[in-house]
Amino acid sequence: MSKHETPRDPNEVLEEYEETLDSVLAEVESTDEATTDDDISLGLPGHSLGRRDFMKAGVAAGAMGSVAGCSALSGGDSSAGSQSTPSSSGASHTVEPGEHDEYYGFWSGGHSGELRVIGIPSMRELTRIPVFNTDCASGYGFTDGTQEMLEEGGGYSWGDNHHPNLSETDGDYDGEYLYVNDKANGRIARVNLTYFETDAITDVPNMQAIHGCCVLSPDTKYVLGNGEFRAPLPNDGTDAKNPDNYTSLFVAVDPESMETQWQVKVDGNLDIVDTGKEGRWAISSAYNSEEATDIQGMTKDDRDNVKAFDIPAIEQAVENGNYEEVNGIPVVDGTQGSSLNQGDRPLVKYIPTPKSPHCVEVGPNGDYAFIAGKLSPTVTMLDLNALADSSDPDEVVAGRPRVGLGPLHTTFDGNGHAYTSLFIDSQTVKWDIQAAVEAEEGSEDPIIEKQDVHYNPGHIQALEAITTDPDGEWLVSLNKLSKDRFLPVGPIMPDNDQLIHIGQGEKEMELVADHPAYPEPHDCVFAHKDKIDAKKVYDKDDYEETYITEEDSGVERTGENSVHVKMTTKRSEFGLPDFTVQEGDEVKLSTTNIEGVQDIIHGVAIPEHDINYAVAPQDTREVTFTADDPGVYWIYCTYFCSALHLEMRSRMIVEPAEG
Amino acid sequence: MSKHETPRDPNEVLEEYEETLDSVLAEVESTDEATTDDDISLGLPGHSLGRRDFMKAGVAAGAMGSVAGCSALSGGDSSAGSQSTPSSSGASHTVEPGEHDEYYGFWSGGHSGELRVIGIPSMRELTRIPVFNTDCASGYGFTDGTQEMLEEGGGYSWGDNHHPNLSETDGDYDGEYLYVNDKANGRIARVNLTYFETDAITDVPNMQAIHGCCVLSPDTKYVLGNGEFRAPLPNDGTDAKNPDNYTSLFVAVDPESMETQWQVKVDGNLDIVDTGKEGRWAISSAYNSEEATDIQGMTKDDRDNVKAFDIPAIEQAVENGNYEEVNGIPVVDGTQGSSLNQGDRPLVKYIPTPKSPHCVEVGPNGDYAFIAGKLSPTVTMLDLNALADSSDPDEVVAGRPRVGLGPLHTTFDGNGHAYTSLFIDSQTVKWDIQAAVEAEEGSEDPIIEKQDVHYNPGHIQALEAITTDPDGEWLVSLNKLSKDRFLPVGPIMPDNDQLIHIGQGEKEMELVADHPAYPEPHDCVFAHKDKIDAKKVYDKDDYEETYITEEDSGVERTGENSVHVKMTTKRSEFGLPDFTVQEGDEVKLSTTNIEGVQDIIHGVAIPEHDINYAVAPQDTREVTFTADDPGVYWIYCTYFCSALHLEMRSRMIVEPAEG
Repeated sequence: MSKHETPRDPNEVLEEYEETLDSVLAEVESTDEATTDDDISLGLPGHSLGRRDFMKAGVAAGAMGSVAGCSALSGGDSSAGSQSTPSSSGASHTVEPGEHDEYYGFWSGGHSGELRVIGIPSMRELTRIPVFNTDCASGYGFTDGTQEMLEEGGGYSWGDNHHPNLSETDGDYDGEYLYVNDKANGRIARVNLTYFETDAITDVPNMQAIHGCCVLSPDTKYVLGNGEFRAPLPNDGTDAKNPDNYTSLFVAVDPESMETQWQVKVDGNLDIVDTGKEGRWAISSAYNSEEATDIQGMTKDDRDNVKAFDIPAIEQAVENGNYEEVNGIPVVDGTQGSSLNQGDRPLVKYIPTPKSPHCVEVGPNGDYAFIAGKLSPTVTMLDLNALADSSDPDEVVAGRPRVGLGPLHTTFDGNGHAYTSLFIDSQTVKWDIQAAVEAEEGSEDPIIEKQDVHYNPGHIQALEAITTDPDGEWLVSLNKLSKDRFLPVGPIMPDNDQLIHIGQGEKEMELVADHPAYPEPHDCVFAHKDKIDAKKVYDKDDYEETYITEEDSGVERTGENSVHVKMTTKRSEFGLPDFTVQEGDEVKLSTTNIEGVQDIIHGVAIPEHDINYAVAPQDTREVTFTADDPGVYWIYCTYFCSALHLEMRSRMIVEPAEG
Repeated sequence: MSKHETPRDPNEVLEEYEETLDSVLAEVESTDEATTDDDISLGLPGHSLGRRDFMKAGVAAGAMGSVAGCSALSGGDSSAGSQSTPSSSGASHTVEPGEHDEYYGFWSGGHSGELRVIGIPSMRELTRIPVFNTDCASGYGFTDGTQEMLEEGGGYSWGDNHHPNLSETDGDYDGEYLYVNDKANGRIARVNLTYFETDAITDVPNMQAIHGCCVLSPDTKYVLGNGEFRAPLPNDGTDAKNPDNYTSLFVAVDPESMETQWQVKVDGNLDIVDTGKEGRWAISSAYNSEEATDIQGMTKDDRDNVKAFDIPAIEQAVENGNYEEVNGIPVVDGTQGSSLNQGDRPLVKYIPTPKSPHCVEVGPNGDYAFIAGKLSPTVTMLDLNALADSSDPDEVVAGRPRVGLGPLHTTFDGNGHAYTSLFIDSQTVKWDIQAAVEAEEGSEDPIIEKQDVHYNPGHIQALEAITTDPDGEWLVSLNKLSKDRFLPVGPIMPDNDQLIHIGQGEKEMELVADHPAYPEPHDCVFAHKDKIDAKKVYDKDDYEETYITEEDSGVERTGENSVHVKMTTKRSEFGLPDFTVQEGDEVKLSTTNIEGVQDIIHGVAIPEHDINYAVAPQDTREVTFTADDPGVYWIYCTYFCSALHLEMRSRMIVEPAEG
């Protein structure tokens, strides 16, 4: 097979496979599916096959050998898929009591709406950062400020965050911000890494689902987002039943103002996006070039088009006024038929790749973009240096190694190796980047080693793999299923984020820890601890609310039916032991924690008023509510702050309205 | 000091201490508090003292030696407070990949509103169970069924869960249910341990804050709750400014119907409750016998009264009609002046103990209740066998060892040892129960060993310590502050749940792991894995919703402005590729996951409609919403279920209203 010959159509092979399996299926169907521990799905409508059966079938169906690229599939060779054995390399992920982790891991929480901060290598969850969800532990979505932000950010109480990205300066993490998308509602949020809290949410106009999300290297000029779902533009009911007129968009958001700058209309469904290291190219994987509306149609064709967005060219088009304005946003036409794509410098290059590719990751030195095949057992390497002058696959495809079944994501150790997750094979495959360039297309030669994971990995990430200087050492495989790996906790099982030791890339991979994860982490990104500089105490100059001193504590009537209550907190005492309001009053309660000592948090809970929020040292928070019901309500501190924490209370008396 | 002599008033000693410290305070005040890592609070208004200064002061103020009972305080003896050193005993808490934990730990999540299931000894979080909060990952609070339950349970979107309790049969865990209180809003919730989900929430009438919560051993006849906050009864504005007429209540809830059975009015603020092993006594700690409304008043007197509730006597009073009905609940008068408390068999015995005791735990064989002193450096042991015939402290107090500063909670290893958390000393103290009975009151003799913890522990729990047969081996100290123990994550720091190896109680304690915890776990309870029998796939007989088959999938118009959409889910496919509704329609969407395979969860997300929920195998969930905005909305699966997960979509078309 020559370097640029197309590999066999995986669907065709799967069909062949299914035919060969007819005799096996009877046996599969007789199995009690509910108790088959190692059942795994190909995800094709109408078939649910067990991994064990798949492997049996692999033996029966010799045809699979030619496509699988995974020796586990042939059923006999166990050397390629190494089993987990404790610490053969002596690698330890234990962090002794009182010692610190070496890396911050920022996990997107998927449809939990939150981010999670996890220490590496201990895999301990250090904190959660609510983003698109509400969170009563911190009061996110309960205080006026966070409520307003969520309201202005679309007014939703959940989101589906997928791709966390750290802000960069000169191509390295600067520790300032983290940006993450909401796939569900087409939003991008920003997290302030000084205080580890969400400080902005942008509901991007015209987009229903932002899936891929990244910052433009090397200096975070934009936060870029991939619109996944095709819909009418604008989506107001017109053309709702005319999918030919649906469109998907690519968007650039300003990282400071968080305002949407421009959008680009493209063909097909966009999936994941990453950028080159020089600020010019954003590469988006894509599926459904068929522009169908059901799964059969979406997976019909052999090829889909990866998109290469030429950012300066798009900026120039916007500057030249070559756009249509929709809901206030300049929308540039980047579809294949657009005149803007016909000249010497098209806005968007369409590069055919084997069908339904999933992810794109740009390697550390920016030479190649790695596009995992999903339904093709290959990873397509795009030569970014050749991209400016050609979009001919023969010229821009630098390699296409055959890695195994269901390749989804690729990560890097900085020593010339790529690691690709194999969803269907449930493996991490390590391969040699240069060898893949030199090998014939579809060759298995570049493959170095395979590590079984448990089970069905999505994203994988090695330490700082996205920077120009990856750190190697550890890799995390974010596995979607855990099945029998943990004590049973009912039908909704945790994911399994597995920690794999990769050393500096020269050693064999070693699985060292299973880590259960509440649904459903999607991706993660790592930063060395020295790159993050979190404050332990608030600076009052960093927020808008007015700092309350002990002298300020009191009740001020601000209107016939409104009062402003100001109250400090410190260990064991609220600034007001009690206060009185009238039934029906709108009460604005401002609270400052006047302590200067780290980790002395106070909580302000008002029973039967659905109010609770945290006030960290030197922080001020406000909440507004209506005092509807006469009675006595004991405001209490929800953070166990001192030996007399239980006695830390204020008494709100709501006097009955007269008459 | 004779056995029953009162120990010195801790407040008096603290005053003496403060006076002695005048010269030291100048130095304390010159310290930059915000950066003092080991600052720790006594919690007394007006003073914030560093631990280091406290220890210095201990040397200076010889008077402290007589009350501290903690050698660490004397500044010189380091042998009692052992430092954390890795694995001197060879105890390993590592659970290798693929192996299971030995115990389930159920953590109350405090004001996060959720429960957390944590494996022991790995300390990995296996799952979360939303209880009083909402949770978009599972759809708790997003589906009709969970929304209704939360609405009927008070309509709040948060709660403050404190004390998780496993249901018992014959004094051992039967694996059926877990009960937990909401301190904020006076509620009790039940979690079904077959499916690990909340199935009932009771908003208990007349009670603002239920703090202590336990089940009545040995057969879970009731779930018992302590009303902490005193308020008018009913709390309708009457007597709001007359604290003399405030009252607090003790409640019994039926564990099956979850209906409130009866309440008992008492003096003072109730705190924590535990029961004897024979179904007769419930012992509640209590503070604020002063019945004051501010902290100075609440901590004024030397003594507070622990309450011993005689459950059969209370039942008899209710049966005899000796109650007042308030908001439909029989309320029995158990105050000290009540006639029901004057006879041979009072409903409630009031037992004076040193001021503001915090917790009560009944030991494994049911002989003693252990009441930690909080502001007294002692643990008071009540002889439950003597309780029936006397409430004279001289007869019912079996021992009162001096354990250290700020004792809050006690746990047991089943080999004759008690372990008490010391909030102010930041230690776990191990002591001999029988030696404490035999020693003089206030003696330090029973003390075996002290282990530093980091920092300020609240609850501590050893494995199955609450059963009649504790397992020893591991103990968890739930420390309220972590300060410098983890990578900085902004001003809101995690708690630190520390795992301590205690062997079978014969070995020295060994601190083996720090475990960061999102705010703010309060307590935990452990069950051996063999005692929990979680189902991995739903049984349709276990829920009310109508199971939807593939044949049922479709849209049924149920009214002029209402439709019922029925839709199955299975890997890669919703039962309907698309459906159409009219603008303004109330849409009821019923979804069944028709898969029988464990761990194949599907999510149903509707962009821009704030809808997301999980449907586990064989489960059915329903959601009702209004289709307000014309357009195309791509319903998608939020659980990565197969290789073609991205293509798993249904298209909701909302047609514009005519005219």
